[in-house]
Formats: sequence, C-alpha cells, structure tokens
Amino acid sequence: MKTIDINCDMGESFGNYRLGRDEDIIHHITSANIACAWHAGDPGTMDRTVALALKNNVAAGAHPGYPDLMGFGRRRLDCTPQEIRQYVAYQVGALQAFCKAHNTRLRHVKPHGALYHRAVADEAAARAIAKAVMDVDPGLCYVALAGEKGRTMARVGREMGLAVKYEAFPDRAYTPGGVLLSRQSPGAVIKEPAEVAERALEMVLEGRVKTVDGSSTALKVDTLCVHGDTPGAVELAKAINIAMQAAGVSLMAMGTRHTPES
Amino acid sequence: MKTIDINCDMGESFGNYRLGRDEDIIHHITSANIACAWHAGDPGTMDRTVALALKNNVAAGAHPGYPDLMGFGRRRLDCTPQEIRQYVAYQVGALQAFCKAHNTRLRHVKPHGALYHRAVADEAAARAIAKAVMDVDPGLCYVALAGEKGRTMARVGREMGLAVKYEAFPDRAYTPGGVLLSRQSPGAVIKEPAEVAERALEMVLEGRVKTVDGSSTALKVDTLCVHGDTPGAVELAKAINIAMQAAGVSLMAMGTRHTPES
Amino acid sequence: MKTIDINCDMGESFGNYRLGRDEDIIHHITSANIACAWHAGDPGTMDRTVALALKNNVAAGAHPGYPDLMGFGRRRLDCTPQEIRQYVAYQVGALQAFCKAHNTRLRHVKPHGALYHRAVADEAAARAIAKAVMDVDPGLCYVALAGEKGRTMARVGREMGLAVKYEAFPDRAYTPGGVLLSRQSPGAVIKEPAEVAERALEMVLEGRVKTVDGSSTALKVDTLCVHGDTPGAVELAKAINIAMQAAGVSLMAMGTRHTPES
Amino acid sequence: MKTIDINCDMGESFGNYRLGRDEDIIHHITSANIACAWHAGDPGTMDRTVALALKNNVAAGAHPGYPDLMGFGRRRLDCTPQEIRQYVAYQVGALQAFCKAHNTRLRHVKPHGALYHRAVADEAAARAIAKAVMDVDPGLCYVALAGEKGRTMARVGREMGLAVKYEAFPDRAYTPGGVLLSRQSPGAVIKEPAEVAERALEMVLEGRVKTVDGSSTALKVDTLCVHGDTPGAVELAKAINIAMQAAGVSLMAMGTRHTPES
Repeated sequence: MKTIDINCDMGESFGNYRLGRDEDIIHHITSANIACAWHAGDPGTMDRTVALALKNNVAAGAHPGYPDLMGFGRRRLDCTPQEIRQYVAYQVGALQAFCKAHNTRLRHVKPHGALYHRAVADEAAARAIAKAVMDVDPGLCYVALAGEKGRTMARVGREMGLAVKYEAFPDRAYTPGGVLLSRQSPGAVIKEPAEVAERALEMVLEGRVKTVDGSSTALKVDTLCVHGDTPGAVELAKAINIAMQAAGVSLMAMGTRHTPES
Repeated sequence: MKTIDINCDMGESFGNYRLGRDEDIIHHITSANIACAWHAGDPGTMDRTVALALKNNVAAGAHPGYPDLMGFGRRRLDCTPQEIRQYVAYQVGALQAFCKAHNTRLRHVKPHGALYHRAVADEAAARAIAKAVMDVDPGLCYVALAGEKGRTMARVGREMGLAVKYEAFPDRAYTPGGVLLSRQSPGAVIKEPAEVAERALEMVLEGRVKTVDGSSTALKVDTLCVHGDTPGAVELAKAINIAMQAAGVSLMAMGTRHTPES
Repeated sequence: MKTIDINCDMGESFGNYRLGRDEDIIHHITSANIACAWHAGDPGTMDRTVALALKNNVAAGAHPGYPDLMGFGRRRLDCTPQEIRQYVAYQVGALQAFCKAHNTRLRHVKPHGALYHRAVADEAAARAIAKAVMDVDPGLCYVALAGEKGRTMARVGREMGLAVKYEAFPDRAYTPGGVLLSRQSPGAVIKEPAEVAERALEMVLEGRVKTVDGSSTALKVDTLCVHGDTPGAVELAKAINIAMQAAGVSLMAMGTRHTPES
Repeated sequence: MKTIDINCDMGESFGNYRLGRDEDIIHHITSANIACAWHAGDPGTMDRTVALALKNNVAAGAHPGYPDLMGFGRRRLDCTPQEIRQYVAYQVGALQAFCKAHNTRLRHVKPHGALYHRAVADEAAARAIAKAVMDVDPGLCYVALAGEKGRTMARVGREMGLAVKYEAFPDRAYTPGGVLLSRQSPGAVIKEPAEVAERALEMVLEGRVKTVDGSSTALKVDTLCVHGDTPGAVELAKAINIAMQAAGVSLMAMGTRHTPES
C-alpha cells in the first residue's frame, strides 16, 4: 500500500504575536515542522506546539532557521558551514528538550526559508545541516527538496547516513526539468484545493507531476508540504488529506517506517 | 575517602567578544557550567567549550539564564514560573545537542545570575527549574545553594527526584547564619588564594565554614564554585585544587557517583 | 473651548508579525504612541507608522519599552535608572529619525507596559525617563498617569521642565481614590462603547470620573488612552471621538498648545 | 595648509563585554565611528563613547551595521535597499539622541563591515544608506571608500547632496588599480607603524599610495582609517598623528569645514 506524509510549518507564533492556524491545520497533516525560536517561535510556543502535535498524533520535527526574527529567516545570512552546523544543532537540541518533556521524540528536521534555499544551492551548507542532524540523533529524517534541484542536498544527507525524505509542493508549478517555478512567475502558486489535491495524487500514485508546458516529469516524493501561512492552507491540507484517503493512500508520518519502534 | 567537585562558569564569550580564561582554568576544575546563548555564549562557543571540557576530562553542565544578553543575565526579569521552565528546558536541550555531537553527556544544571538568585528566593521558580531539568533528563544533577538560604531550592530539587548538589563559595564571606555576605559589604570577597584554599578545605573536611564573626557554622558542600570572571580566578582554582589533593581529597565531577556508567 | 487628545499605541507589528488595527483606528485618534523596536515594532514599521500618522494628521509620539520583545515589554526588568535613561533616549532618538525622514516632528513620549508601571511606582525611574526626554528634545510632552498614583511621575516630569500630560483610561474602572482598579478585579474593563464614551465625556467636561463605589472623584485629564489591542478598540475610539465632537469638545493632539509653531 | 582626518571605530563594547582600547586611541584620532547597538555597542556604551569623544575634542559619527550582533556585522544579510535605509536611519537617529544629551552633534556616518562592503558593491544599497543619512540630517558627512572601487558609492552620496569624504587605509596594501588587496593575500596588512605613517603621509601630501607592484597610484583621501581592533592600533594611530603634525598637516575632523558653525 502506498503511504504519504503531509507536513506543515507550525509553532511560528512569537511572544505576543500570533501566526498561522496551527490548531485547525493539525487535523489534516501527519508531520509538523516546528520553529525553534530563531527565525520564529519561542520556548512557550515550542512547548505548546509539541503538545498539540502529540495530542493529534502528528510527528514533531524541527524547523531550524537563520538567527533573523526580524526577517522571519527568509533572508540569506552569510554564515559559514560550521556556523550553520552549530546553529542547526542548537535549535534541534532545544526542540528535543520539549519532546522529552512530553515523552515523545523528535522525528525529522527540515531547514526553514533561506537556510533551506541555501542547502539546496550550496553543498557545504547541506552537509553542515546533515552533520548537525546526525550529531544530535542519527534516527532523525532529513527533509530534502524532491526533484533535480534537490539532488545534491539529498545525496549529502544519504552520504551522512540519514534517512532522506523527498519533499514536494503540490500547490506550486513545476518546470519540465522538475524544478519549482519561481514565485514571481504567473501561475507559480496554485490555489484551487481540488487541483492541488489532484496534483498531490499524481505525485503519490504515479511519481510524476504535471509541468507548466502541459507535459509531466518524474518526481519521487515522500512528503507533501502545505504552507501554513497561505490563506487557504487549511482547505488545501484538508483536500489533500481527503483525496489520499479516497485513493487508498495511507497517511503516515515520514519517519514512521524508519523508526518502527516509536 | 572524601571527594569534592570544583565548578566554574565557562563558555561566556559571544560572537566577536571574548570573556573568561576558559583554557587556563579548565585545568583546575572538575565541572564546567556552560552558558547556553541566552545571557552569554553562542552556539559556536558552546560547541568549543564542550570539546574543551571533554578534552580535559571536565564534566559539562548547563548554565541557563534569563534572555538578557545586554545585562549578562544579572537583572531580574519578571517572567512566570512556566516561562522559566520553558526557558531552562530550551537552553539545557540546546547544550545537550553539543554534548551528543561530542559523544559525551550533560551532567548538571546550575542556573545563572539573577535566575539563580530567584531560584533561591522563590520556591515556584526553583520548582520550575527543577521540573525543566527533570523533564529533559532525570539523571542530571541540580546545583543548589548550600546553607540556610538554599534550603528551599534544594528541597524542591529533591522532591522532584533530582540529585541535588550543594554549592559553596570559598572566596565569599559567610554570616553566622550560613548566608553569603552581600558583595556590597566590606570583606565580602576573599582574594588571597591561600586563605580561599584553607576555607575550601574546612568546608570539605569538616563540613563547616568560618563566619564573619570569627566563629564557624555547618555547611554541607558537594561543589565549590570558582568565579571565572574574577581577576585571580585561575590562581584561586589552582590553589583549591592543590590543597584538596594535598589533603587527600579526591577531585571528582559532581555527577560522577550519581551516574556511575558514564 | 475644551480640548482633548485621544491616544493609542501603534506600530506594534514586527517583521512578519502583524498586530493591531492601526489603519482603522488612526481615523479616530489624535496622538499615536509608536513602538520603537525594543518591545515591539521594527524600523520598517516605525517608518510606515510615522507616515500613516502624518497622512491622517495624527501626532507621532514615542512609546519606548524594555528590551524584551518576547515579553512584549510587559515584564519588569531590573535595570538601573541610568540604563532606563539610556534605553529611552536610544528609542526616542531612533523614532525621531523617521519623523525627520517624513518632515514632521516627534511630539510626545509615553513609556510602555512594565516601564510605564515602573515610572508610576519608582521615582528614580520616572526621573530617568523624563531626563532622557528632556535630553533629546525639551519640547516633547511627557505622558503621566492621571490621578493619585501618577502624582510622583507627573511632578518629576514638571520638575525636569517638561510639559506633562495627564492620561486617563475611560474603559477602565477607577477606585474612589482615583486609582485604576486592577485588571484582575471583576468589572475592571468596560467594554460598552456608549458607556466608555460617557465616562470619557465626564472626564473631559467635569474633570471627574465615576468610581466603583457609585460616587465620583476628581481627575485632571489631558489625553484619553484607547488600547489598540482590545478587540473593540476601533469602536471605542470612534465612540469617544463622536461623543467629544457632539459635546463641542475640540480634538487636538496633546502637544499642540505647548508647541504652537508646529 | 593641508588637513586630514583620522577615524577609528569605537564604542564596540556590549553589556558585560569589553572590546577595543577606546580610551587610549581617542587621543590620536579626530573622528570616532560609534557603533549603534545593532552589530556592536549598546545604549550605555553609546552614551559613554559620545562623552569620551566630546571630552577629547573628537567628532562623533555613526557606524551603523546589520542587525547581527552574533556576527559582529561582518556577514552579509540579504535585506532590501528599503530595509537598509530604515536600519541606517534608525541607528543614526538613536546615536543622535546621545549627541543631543551631551550637547554636541553628530558629524558623519560610515557604514560598518558587511554593510560597508555592500555599499561599495551595490549601488542601490549605497543609495539607501545615503538617503537615510540625508533624511536624518543633510549636514552629515558620508564616508565612502577612496579609489576606483568606491567610485559608485561616492557618486551616489554626492548625487544625494551629501558631503562625501574619501576614506583610505594606510595599513592596507593597494593594487595598481587603487583597490585594497584582499586580507587573505600575503602582505595585505602592514603592521610596522613607521611604514604605515609613511604611507599615510604619501596619501595626504601627494594624493598617491604605493601599490603592491612597486609603483604608485593616485588616491584622493579625506580621512584615514585606523582599525581599533588591530593589536597595534594605538601605536599606528599615534605614529600617523605624529607624522602628520611633523609634516605640517593639520588634523581636523572630516566634517569641520563642511559645517563651520560647529
């Protein structure tokens, strides 16, 4: 039987500031990427978000980012690979503390924003992140971009010994080369839940995605990302979730088979 | 045979800023309280300080503080006990990540500065810290102030199920009631290494400390603190260390007996 | 003719986080207290909020707070009066830069949250704030709490040579002694716009406020505060604004008469 | 008579951390570039450094940088030109507050570290900084890199209407094209005070600098930079200062002639 994971960024509130609809979207996903108080989130939010995930049987993962709360981790900061390794280890460790406090365990790591982009574009950065993940817990899954552009990031994770999980974006247009169309291009973001669900199904059932030229390309996918800050995020997640169940695809957190004991 | 631990705050450098003589003092102590990047320290410093401790066979402990780098964690911040619990868990978890990266494990937690003072004065805060420590790792030692004033803090730690370690300050004057004389008072800080070493010996061998009125008072002590930012810190640590060895006292990290496997 | 000012905290968004309904409430007030990027706000938000105030003919004021974004400036931080003076000067100066960029000028300073509470309770803190304001621009108004509890804060401002403006809260219950009833007490916050407007009118027209025991007490008022983060803030501000106009009270920014040239 | 300015970065201490030998170097310079609490410095340090400059008859300037204390402003952060403008305005305004508190006025702005590098390489960034300076005070001098590479930065400042001051580095090797040799190259940094002073003299008296190939190139210079964090900084500043006086060159803060009234 086919299985798939649906992941979403969560725990991005900070202090007095609220962001995202975590309590709604949690019902439709299987993995939560929890911000670690550097680009978003704070210890209280981390604590509550781990509890929320656990209560809803959703796997908790770390979503480390650059030390740039003002820029929400979306701006590249020219730190060294060593600094990246240290920053990621720090954040993953901090989130693990809340997992322990709730008697659960961390399941995956997915870099956030500009750090993710850098991991895709810069092998040394990808390796630094993978090393940090390996150092802290070799049982953690390492989320890498599915498709051609993510190939190096994924290889580096595998070479490190980590379980690499390929992530695709059903609400984003892909080029014939299997690369995400830039958000600046018209049609880059697909908003219709039915269409997004259909694309998600094609990814999971056929290992392919429709491309902007009307053809399609192969795309190996382990986890589907839903953007929590998109206005219709809850509806998209729900539509994907329902479509998967209707097609007999089992929804399962990405780390489940890799870590059968948990 | 008597044993004692000597602890010192370490890893307080931040970014481009250097603080403390970690590389010198490490040779004379058995436990390092490592700052966790809130009131001092940063991930790179944490990484290097854990490595330094491990290389010198010194136990690594966490030294969590208030989120106040500008005030070095020395200013009280009126956060709630729940926030304290979350802040401590976050910091301890972050430091654990570096311990794992170096294949060692964290051994103790000692709150820093104003957070320590608050734990001494405020039972709910002491309990919040102890809860965070327990949540993250029940095998961690919890450092509490030796003497009358630290009684509540220590009791709370024991009730939580933690191994409480009593900390004394051989370079500080004590009142007849077994309380530290305020730093503002004349004679509060003792700077002569020989005198400090003698006081340390009396604490360890006789379980007593000379008081400002010329008498002495009972003081149960598990660990002796040397202040790394004192000008003569290295000399004090060295003098205490030598005096202990000369007296046949075994120097041993505070968590050693509690966790014989490590 | 009677005049009154209506003030509201604004510019509290930070980075990716949105807070408050600045664009709606701006139409009903005469003075904006703009956060200065320490407890809330960021340079971009400051820039835009000064522009918004100017466009709507609303006076721009500074709303400095503690360096505690995570706690939104609502937690007391034990810094010294000298540090308070420096923190306030820094924040007021930073906001002035945006006033200059928009060819307007800063008109008042009102401390935020825990810093305001401290100014009310601690004369040295009140003086430190007043000194910072005086140092940066002697023409700035200094907002102080109306009533008995604010007496010291106001006196200190006057002694410094500043134009002190008394602030009252029409949506808050007052004790017979002219003191705000604690938010924890039932009935402390009044939510009905008509009632709040009526209380505001009594303050302005009669210099009195109804108290919780059914009597009333004298209260000298220069500016009425509307809390921007209250759910019905826009409606309250609008109700007060309309009631004032209906009663022939002129709405005018608090600093207007003190600085006739601007 | 020839005049020259000697500038140095100052006020880079933060909280409990000390950096630089401000109190020694202040005697040998004419302009202080004061950190504004983003990449270094804090309000207390700013306050004290302005006082120190004033007491020693040294002009106070702002040294704004990226919001990256952990990286000391030396790492590029991909913010937009608009954000740069806002960040610079904020920092310059904050420092002005302390100048007002000490009854002096700000004289120049020199971007720090990675922000300076970006201004040299990126016209939009250079313009954003110049716009911020112009917005806050059109009388401020704008420090730009002397030589070929700084040409765009300088032009942008002039177009904005600012007094541009060309900065050279007598302790750094120059290529035949008038460009600083990369610090990574051997011989890039000159440490011998006599040689540095000689190079400084050549810059000031002849408008030329010796280049690494043994020839020399024209270099228009208004201000000579001494790096405060170089080990021998005080000696270098002193040597340059003495050499200038011996050669009859008048030492004068860069903004002096542009703002004769002050």
